[in-house]
Amino acid sequence: MSTLPASGAPVTVIGLGLMGQALAGAFLAKGHPTTVWNRSAAKADDLVARGAVLADSVQSAVEASPLVVVCVSDYDAVHQLLGPVGGSLAGRTLVNLTTASSTQARETAEWAQKLDAAYLDGAILALPHAIGTEEATLLYAGPQATFEEHRATLEVLGAEATVYLDEDHGLSALYDLSVLSIMWGVLNSFLHGAALLGTANVKASTFAELAVTAINVTAEYASAYAQQIDAGEYPATDATVNVHVGGMTHLVEESETLGVNAELPRFFLELAKRAVAAGDAENSYASLIKQFRKPSA
Amino acid sequence: MSTLPASGAPVTVIGLGLMGQALAGAFLAKGHPTTVWNRSAAKADDLVARGAVLADSVQSAVEASPLVVVCVSDYDAVHQLLGPVGGSLAGRTLVNLTTASSTQARETAEWAQKLDAAYLDGAILALPHAIGTEEATLLYAGPQATFEEHRATLEVLGAEATVYLDEDHGLSALYDLSVLSIMWGVLNSFLHGAALLGTANVKASTFAELAVTAINVTAEYASAYAQQIDAGEYPATDATVNVHVGGMTHLVEESETLGVNAELPRFFLELAKRAVAAGDAENSYASLIKQFRKPSA
Ligand SMILES: NC(=O)c1ccc[n+]([C@@H]2O[C@H](COP(=O)([O-])OP(=O)(O)OC[C@H]3O[C@@H](n4cnc5c(N)ncnc54)[C@H](OP(=O)(O)O)[C@@H]3O)[C@@H](O)[C@H]2O)c1
Ligand SMILES: NC(=O)c1ccc[n+]([C@@H]2O[C@H](COP(=O)([O-])OP(=O)(O)OC[C@H]3O[C@@H](n4cnc5c(N)ncnc54)[C@H](OP(=O)(O)O)[C@@H]3O)[C@@H](O)[C@H]2O)c1
Repeated sequence: MSTLPASGAPVTVIGLGLMGQALAGAFLAKGHPTTVWNRSAAKADDLVARGAVLADSVQSAVEASPLVVVCVSDYDAVHQLLGPVGGSLAGRTLVNLTTASSTQARETAEWAQKLDAAYLDGAILALPHAIGTEEATLLYAGPQATFEEHRATLEVLGAEATVYLDEDHGLSALYDLSVLSIMWGVLNSFLHGAALLGTANVKASTFAELAVTAINVTAEYASAYAQQIDAGEYPATDATVNVHVGGMTHLVEESETLGVNAELPRFFLELAKRAVAAGDAENSYASLIKQFRKPSA
Repeated sequence: MSTLPASGAPVTVIGLGLMGQALAGAFLAKGHPTTVWNRSAAKADDLVARGAVLADSVQSAVEASPLVVVCVSDYDAVHQLLGPVGGSLAGRTLVNLTTASSTQARETAEWAQKLDAAYLDGAILALPHAIGTEEATLLYAGPQATFEEHRATLEVLGAEATVYLDEDHGLSALYDLSVLSIMWGVLNSFLHGAALLGTANVKASTFAELAVTAINVTAEYASAYAQQIDAGEYPATDATVNVHVGGMTHLVEESETLGVNAELPRFFLELAKRAVAAGDAENSYASLIKQFRKPSA
C-alpha cells in the first residue's frame, strides 16, 4: 500500500502509455487511492514510487475500485483486456478515454450495459502534460447520473474544462474526431508553411510567431463562418471563393516550383473549384461546408 | 477635389475590389489625399463621397501621387493595367499588394527596375474589415530604404503589424502563401468538423466554441514543434505518430460512415503513414516536416 496520504474516491487506471501515466499521475497528485495496470508492467514504476498500487492482473485492477478508467491504443485493446473480466465490471463504472469512432463508442456502451456496468465514453482534447490543468478539455457522453456521480473525481483530470455532452454515447467520439481534424489541419498547414519558408532558410521558429497570430485570427473567422453555416447563407463580406481560388492557385504553383509537397494545396484548390462549380464563386468560404457534407466530388 | 481636410502624403490606389476599397478607405480616414481608379468606376462612388479623387485613366491615377498602391485580382491584371503606362512610373514608388507567388514578385521587381520605379512587394494577412486596425498584418519586401521612405503612409494600413521582411522581393509572397496555407488548413478542418457534428444536429456555432479553444491550443503545439524542426530532432514527449495514425484511422472511418467528405482525413492518414514508413512511428508529429519537404510520396 501507498505510504502517501490518500483522500478522495478510489480509482483504477488501466493502460499506462503516455496518456494513461498522466491520468494516473493526476489522480495520485490529488490524493485519490489509485490502482494501476499496464501490459508492460515497467511503465508503472514511476507511479508506484508516487504511491500507486500496481495490480497483478486486469481482474484485480478492476476489482480494486468502483471507478475504472481505461486509456489504451484502441477499442480492440479495450475489448481484449476487459472482455475476459467482464463479470467483474458489474456494479462498477467504466470510463473509457481511448480514442474511437462514435460507432465503437455506442457498441461498447451496449456491451457494458449487458454486463450491468455503468459506462461513460470520454475524449481527451489535450496532450498528456496538460492533464490535471485548466488547459485540458475532457468530454463525456453517457448517462448524466453516472457522470454526476463521478464528476468530482473526473474533474481532477481537467477542472472547469470537464464537459458533459449528451446521453448518446457516440457524441464524445464525434466531438473528439472533429477537434482532432482541426488539430491535424492546423499542424499540417503549419508544417507545409514551414517547409515552404525553409527553402528560403527562414527558421520554423521565426515563422511560428507569425503563424500563431494567423492561426488565432483564423479562429475568429471560423466563429463568424459558423453563424453563416447555421443560417445557411454565405454572403462574402470579406473574400469570395473566387479570390481564394486565386490564392490557392499561387500556393500550388509555389509549392511545385520549390519542390515542396503540393498535395495539401491541390486538395484545397480542388475543393474550392467544386464550390465554384456549385455556384458559390461569389460567396464566402463558409459555403464550402456544402462540399464537406458530401462524401466526395 | 475633396472638401474634407487632407493631411499626409498623397497616395493612389488602383483596384477597388473588397480589399482595394478598404485600403483607400483607410488612407482617406487618416487624411491622405487619395486618388483612386478601378476598371468598374462605380466601385469608387462611396470613396469619392468620402473625399477620394477618381482618376479618369490609369495613367492619370499613376501621375497623381509619388506612391502608387495596386491591389487587383492577380499579377496578370497588374501587368495589363500598368504595362501600357510603365513610363509614368519612373521616379515613383509602386507598392503591389496583390497576392502572388515569389517568382511573380521577383519578375515584377525586375520589370519595375527597368522602368526606374522603386518597388515594394507586399502581402496583406487580413480581411478587408481589419485594414487600418491593429488586427491587420502587412508584410513588405524590397529595398529597405524605399520601405522606410513610405513607412508612415504604409502604417496607416496596419499600424504596429507593418513588417519589413527582406531585400528579396520574393519573401512577402512566400510568407503570405505560407500563412494562407494555415488559414485554409484551419478553415477546411473546421468545416470538416462542422459537417461531422452536423450529422448529429450539433450547430456549427456550438462546435465553434470548442473549435476556437482547440485551434488556439494547437497554435501552442505548433510553436513547440517549430523548436524541434529547427533542431532536427523529434522526440515524442506528447503523442507519437503511431498514436496519430490510430486517431486518423478513426476519423476516416467516421467520415465515411457518416457520408461526410473523407478526402481531407485520408490525406492526413496517408501522410502520417509515410512518416511511419520513413521510420518516424515513435517520433512526434513535427517529424512530418520531412514529408512536407518532399514534392510527393
Ligand atoms: N498522447 C496524446 O497526446 C493523446 C491525446 C488525446 C488522446 N489520446 C488517446 O489516448 C489513448 C492512449 O494514447 P497514448 O498516447 O497513451 O498511447 P501510447 O503511449 O502508445 O500507449 C498505448 C497504451 O495502450 C496499451 N496497449 C496497446 N495495445 C494493447 C493491447 N492489445 N493489450 C493491452 N494493452 C495495450 C499499451 O500497453 P504497453 O505499454 O504494454 O504497450 C499502452 O499502455 C489513445 O487512444 C490516444 O488516441 C492520446
Ligand atoms: N479580400 C480579402 O480578404 C483579401 C485578403 C488578403 C489579400 N487579398 C488579395 O487582394 C487582391 C484583391 O482582392 P479583392 O478581395 O479585392 O478581390 P475582388 O473583390 O474580387 O476585386 C478584384 C479587383 O481586381 C480588379 N481586376 C481584376 N482583373 C482585372 C483586370 N484584368 N483589369 C483591371 N482590373 C481588374 C477588379 O476590377 P473590377 O471591379 O472592374 O472587376 C477589382 O478591382 C487579391 O490578390 C487578393 O488575393 C484579398
